[in-house]
Amino acid sequence: MCAAWVPDEIVLEHPVMPLTRDVSRVTFYVPQYMGAPDTLEIMAHMPQLRVVQLLTAGFDNALAHVPSGVTLCNAAGVHDASTAELAVGLMIAAQRGIDDFARARGTWLHARRQSLADSRVLIIGAGGVGQAIARRLDPFEVDVRLVGQQMRDGVHGAAEIPDLLPWADIVVLAVPLNAHTEGMVDAAFLARMRSGALLVNVARGSVVQTEALLAESGRIRVALDVTDPEPLPSDHPLWVMPGVIITPHVGGNTSAYLPRATRLVAEQLERFVQGLPLRNVIRSAQ
Amino acid sequence: MCAAWVPDEIVLEHPVMPLTRDVSRVTFYVPQYMGAPDTLEIMAHMPQLRVVQLLTAGFDNALAHVPSGVTLCNAAGVHDASTAELAVGLMIAAQRGIDDFARARGTWLHARRQSLADSRVLIIGAGGVGQAIARRLDPFEVDVRLVGQQMRDGVHGAAEIPDLLPWADIVVLAVPLNAHTEGMVDAAFLARMRSGALLVNVARGSVVQTEALLAESGRIRVALDVTDPEPLPSDHPLWVMPGVIITPHVGGNTSAYLPRATRLVAEQLERFVQGLPLRNVIRSAQ
Repeated sequence: MCAAWVPDEIVLEHPVMPLTRDVSRVTFYVPQYMGAPDTLEIMAHMPQLRVVQLLTAGFDNALAHVPSGVTLCNAAGVHDASTAELAVGLMIAAQRGIDDFARARGTWLHARRQSLADSRVLIIGAGGVGQAIARRLDPFEVDVRLVGQQMRDGVHGAAEIPDLLPWADIVVLAVPLNAHTEGMVDAAFLARMRSGALLVNVARGSVVQTEALLAESGRIRVALDVTDPEPLPSDHPLWVMPGVIITPHVGGNTSAYLPRATRLVAEQLERFVQGLPLRNVIRSAQ
Repeated sequence: MCAAWVPDEIVLEHPVMPLTRDVSRVTFYVPQYMGAPDTLEIMAHMPQLRVVQLLTAGFDNALAHVPSGVTLCNAAGVHDASTAELAVGLMIAAQRGIDDFARARGTWLHARRQSLADSRVLIIGAGGVGQAIARRLDPFEVDVRLVGQQMRDGVHGAAEIPDLLPWADIVVLAVPLNAHTEGMVDAAFLARMRSGALLVNVARGSVVQTEALLAESGRIRVALDVTDPEPLPSDHPLWVMPGVIITPHVGGNTSAYLPRATRLVAEQLERFVQGLPLRNVIRSAQ
C-alpha cells in the first residue's frame, strides 16, 4: 500500500490509490510542474517517501532535495513535442523575421530573408528533445547533425563540437544541465560559430555564458527560451541584443503537457503499485 | 535558335544560348520575380515570343498579358519549401505566442499556451505548397487533412469543406487564385470555424474576404502572409485585429528561391532548345 501526492491539475481517470495531503505518509510524490522552491523542500518532511516523479525533463533543481534512498524519475518524453516544436518555431521565426514583422506592425517590410531550407543545423543534445527536433526538421530540406555526449550511430560525440560549429548555420542547444554542460557555450564556443549564424537555446539558461553571448552582439543571432538569469530582468541587455528572440521559458508549458504528464504519472503509479521497474529513473534508491 | 531574356539574378552556369535585351527578338521570356507591372506589359512588344516562364507559382497576374499562341509556365515547386516552412512557422508562432513575446520585449510573460502538437490542421489546397505543408507537419503529432478541388486518394474534395471546418483548430489556405477560390473565405466559411481557431493564409490575399474576416475579430485568430489590399496600408484595421500576425508577402522570397529558380530556368531552356515538352505548363500554345 502507498500514499501518493499528485498535483491537482493531473486528474487521473482511474486513480490507482487514494491521493493524500498527509505529508508524513506520502510514499510517491509528484512535485507541482514549475512549482515554487517549497514544493521541493517539503520532501524533507516525507519520511516514508520512496519515489519522486518530476514533471520536468530537467532535474538539476531537484537533485539536492531528494533524500537518499529515494528513487528520482524525470518526465523525459512529456515535453519533447512541445519543446521541439518551439525550437523549430524559433528557427523559422528568426530566419524569416516573424519577430521583426510583429514589432513593425503597420509597416509592410518586404525583403528577401534567409530560409530554414538549405540550412545546416547542429543539434547539441541527442536525448528526447534533441531527437524530437531532428525528427521534426527532417522534411524541411535541411542538413541536420546531432551531437551526444558519446559518439554513436548517427550521433557525433561532444569532442567533435569545435569542428562542427563552423559548419553550422543554426546551432540548437537541447542538453540537460550538468557538470559537462554548465557554461559550455563560452567565448571560445561562440567564436567558432559563423558570422550571422543563429544560436537557439531550449535547454537551460546557464548552459550559455550570458556575458560571452553579449560580447558577440551583432555577429551572432540568438533565439532563447531560457536565460541566465531567469526570469530576465526588464533592464537586462539581452532583451535588446540585435537579432534576439526571447520567449519566457515556455518550451514545455503548453496544452500538450497535461495529457502527456497524466499518462506518465498514471503509468508510473501503476508500475510502482505492481512492483514493476519504473521508467525515466535518474537516480535509483540503493 | 532562340533568344532568351532572363533576370540578372538568375545566373546560369552553362547558358544554353546568349541572353538578350533586344525585346523584339525574345522567344523565351522570364519576367523578373515580383517585378513591376511593366515586366508583364512588355510582352506585347515581343512578336517572336513562344514561351513565358514565370518565377512565381501564382499566375493570376500574368494571364491577361501572355499573348495567345504563347506557352505559359509557372514556377510550381520553386517556392514550395520556402512557403511551406513559413506556414508552419506562422502556426507555431501564433500558437506559442512568439509574436506576442516579440512585442512585449522586456517583459517575462510566462503563461501556458496552445501547442501545435495535438492540433487538427485542415490544409485547403493539395498542390505543391499544400502537400509540402502536410509533409512538414507529419512529425509534429498533429492530425492533418488535405482538401483539393476534387476528392482523390488521401485528399478530401472541396465539397467537404463546410463539414471539415468545425473540426479544425487550424485552417491553412494554400490554393491558387482562380474563379473557384477568389473570395472563398467569406462570412459563411468563417462562421463554421471554431472559436479560437487559427486561419493561416499563404495563398493570395483575395482568397479571403477582408471585411468578413474583420467581422470575426476576437473570435478567430489569423496569420496572413498575403492580404487584400496589398501592400496593406498602415492604417488598415487588419494590422490591429486581436490575435493577428501579418508578414509582408514573404512566402517565397528567401534564400531558398534563387538556387531552385535557377535550376528550373536552366532545365526549361534546355528542354525548349531541344524541343522537349516543358514542365509546369499552365496554358499551352495552341
